[in-house]
Amino acid sequence: MIWQRTLRAGKLTERVLKLFIDTGKDEVFSLIQTLNIQVTLTPVLPTKIKDDEVDIVIGALRSDLTTFMNEWRPMFSRFHVIIVKDPDLKEELKIPEGFNLDVYGKPDIDQVAGSSTSILFSGYSCRYFGYLVSRKKYIISVDDDCLPARDPKGFLVDAVAQHISNLTSPATPFFFNTLYDPYAEGADFVRGYPFSLRGGVKCALSCGLWLNLADHDAPTQALKARQRNSRYVDAVMTVPARSLIPISGINIAFEREAVGPALVPALKLAGEGKCRWETMEDIWSGLCVKIVCDHLGLGVKTGLPYIWRTDRGDPIASLKKEWEGVKLMEEVIPFFQSVRLPREATTVEECIIEVANAVKERLGSMDPVFARAAKAMLDWVELWQSVGSSSSRSSAV
Amino acid sequence: MIWQRTLRAGKLTERVLKLFIDTGKDEVFSLIQTLNIQVTLTPVLPTKIKDDEVDIVIGALRSDLTTFMNEWRPMFSRFHVIIVKDPDLKEELKIPEGFNLDVYGKPDIDQVAGSSTSILFSGYSCRYFGYLVSRKKYIISVDDDCLPARDPKGFLVDAVAQHISNLTSPATPFFFNTLYDPYAEGADFVRGYPFSLRGGVKCALSCGLWLNLADHDAPTQALKARQRNSRYVDAVMTVPARSLIPISGINIAFEREAVGPALVPALKLAGEGKCRWETMEDIWSGLCVKIVCDHLGLGVKTGLPYIWRTDRGDPIASLKKEWEGVKLMEEVIPFFQSVRLPREATTVEECIIEVANAVKERLGSMDPVFARAAKAMLDWVELWQSVGSSSSRSSAV
Repeated sequence: MIWQRTLRAGKLTERVLKLFIDTGKDEVFSLIQTLNIQVTLTPVLPTKIKDDEVDIVIGALRSDLTTFMNEWRPMFSRFHVIIVKDPDLKEELKIPEGFNLDVYGKPDIDQVAGSSTSILFSGYSCRYFGYLVSRKKYIISVDDDCLPARDPKGFLVDAVAQHISNLTSPATPFFFNTLYDPYAEGADFVRGYPFSLRGGVKCALSCGLWLNLADHDAPTQALKARQRNSRYVDAVMTVPARSLIPISGINIAFEREAVGPALVPALKLAGEGKCRWETMEDIWSGLCVKIVCDHLGLGVKTGLPYIWRTDRGDPIASLKKEWEGVKLMEEVIPFFQSVRLPREATTVEECIIEVANAVKERLGSMDPVFARAAKAMLDWVELWQSVGSSSSRSSAV
Repeated sequence: MIWQRTLRAGKLTERVLKLFIDTGKDEVFSLIQTLNIQVTLTPVLPTKIKDDEVDIVIGALRSDLTTFMNEWRPMFSRFHVIIVKDPDLKEELKIPEGFNLDVYGKPDIDQVAGSSTSILFSGYSCRYFGYLVSRKKYIISVDDDCLPARDPKGFLVDAVAQHISNLTSPATPFFFNTLYDPYAEGADFVRGYPFSLRGGVKCALSCGLWLNLADHDAPTQALKARQRNSRYVDAVMTVPARSLIPISGINIAFEREAVGPALVPALKLAGEGKCRWETMEDIWSGLCVKIVCDHLGLGVKTGLPYIWRTDRGDPIASLKKEWEGVKLMEEVIPFFQSVRLPREATTVEECIIEVANAVKERLGSMDPVFARAAKAMLDWVELWQSVGSSSSRSSAV
């Protein structure tokens, strides 16, 4: 009975099948024969992806990228790199030799997105321009004040490889696995985990974490200016469906072809600056991605890989500038917890348009920042579609 | 504005207040004065609990507990211990000296619960009798084939202390914190986490994990008989609201006064034996606890502490006996994912009665095991209420 149900649901994976077969039960073999199931003997491994399926996208908020690029060389050099220069940055970029890269700056942004005044590609949002012009399946993006971390044994963490592993193995958002990622080496699903859910779903987004400087908001950072994160948690997990998460843009990877348009530069704080704790752009974008993934049956993972965040900025000074973001969250979270996307929205673009319309309707009158965000989301979808159809690329270095 | 909302919601904790104050903003101070908020300067720490608020409950499935009790002596000896002997076990128990303990056996079970034939306290379910007769606020329970684990640095893990810490610090089921338990030392809430949710809710249940032998079902255990879990994940996290989890009874702790009646020995498999992978009693009970906690606004945590599970049993032999449990999950999970408790159910007992009635109605006709489970749940609530009012205790050793 479980067989027919699993089959009808299209959820019988080779992994599950192998477990059934290994029981040696007659009923299993007779069903396999009756249903003419093709048994493949090799286990299903995460698809290995090709180097040219990945873009590393870096938003340059400071001009000297020498140390940053050199430290990341072992992980980045196999892949194509897109560097987008913050349009507010006046100095010329310093980038070391030896990378396969394209650099985009204000002129490129004006040329491609000039007509849209609602989307602002300044500050941390400049990287979204890289998401827009990339033609790769996967994107990995790391803040330019982050360096490779070391694990507790002292080995350098290959954040790129871990992100790719997270994205190419299934996510399991519909039931919690207490031993974390069941697809990790040496791990599995625990007793009680239903077999019909063990095939999982596509993982669309992988959120890595941070050692040293944690990702706090301005008040917490001001209050705990000396606190550092030293806890290395050796785990990847799927964020359960319908659970919201504050996704940070510091260290992320995603399948551009699956959810690209949902990563949207839309929420620009009045006092936004060049420190992460002065921004909410990625949190907003992350809430959009998560509800879109929940609606479309895609997965979001969090945990490994860690990166090492170096200190930048003065939290007290930031706090004097940026206090608005913390308050906005009190309106934003109940909205995202309650927004429901219609069944007819079956593409990421359609979903984002629905969310934008709901933002305008339900949050628009509360604060002008929300009306602007809704407008930016609609413009972003349009821009994504137009750029997607007529690839326009600049190059430098 | 955020102030008034937070206050109205009763969610302004001292922790949040302190963050607001630390901003030094005039509007904050004027509001504090206007609203006459009392500022306590000491930070809110997890309540330290007294030793006599805890019962350690052990179900004895084998007679010689010498090694088990001696290995656990450093963690157990401060607390009162309840040992419940599996009624199927014929030999006399061997328990070392030096503990403050009570032992219960078949005669006690017959005396207290004899009239109820639907609840079976045999095998792993014998521990539930200990939950029933305990008069303490907290219960910690560990399988008798488990020993204290060591952390990656080689230090013995005090599982009791970690469980108490988990239970006495708040849980945060309504929003995911990427840096895991925000109440752990050196941790906090990350940017984007709404302040109004940072107070958290009471943690009712703490599920620890297992090193060495993982908690697989019979088919997985048979297939991967040599696989061992060696990944020590240094984290505690709240399981998000509305996300179901396969809670194992191997290593758990709970606030008996808050959720005791929801830990219910109800699902007895036809081929149930004395190996964990032959049982589903704890998985069923865990699903009940989780939906009750979600309904009542209580939290469930998972992660630390680890215990070390020694090998017991032959998975292939088990698989020949027990195959039913895996199939049942395919019916059980959709049921628990969709069951909704009425607003009028405001106590744990009322919730369990509602779940039992829904089980009878929606699953009862599928398999006799479900009708029996529903009956056992109703009888359990009745028994819990009657024993709760007339404490009956036996003693030995």
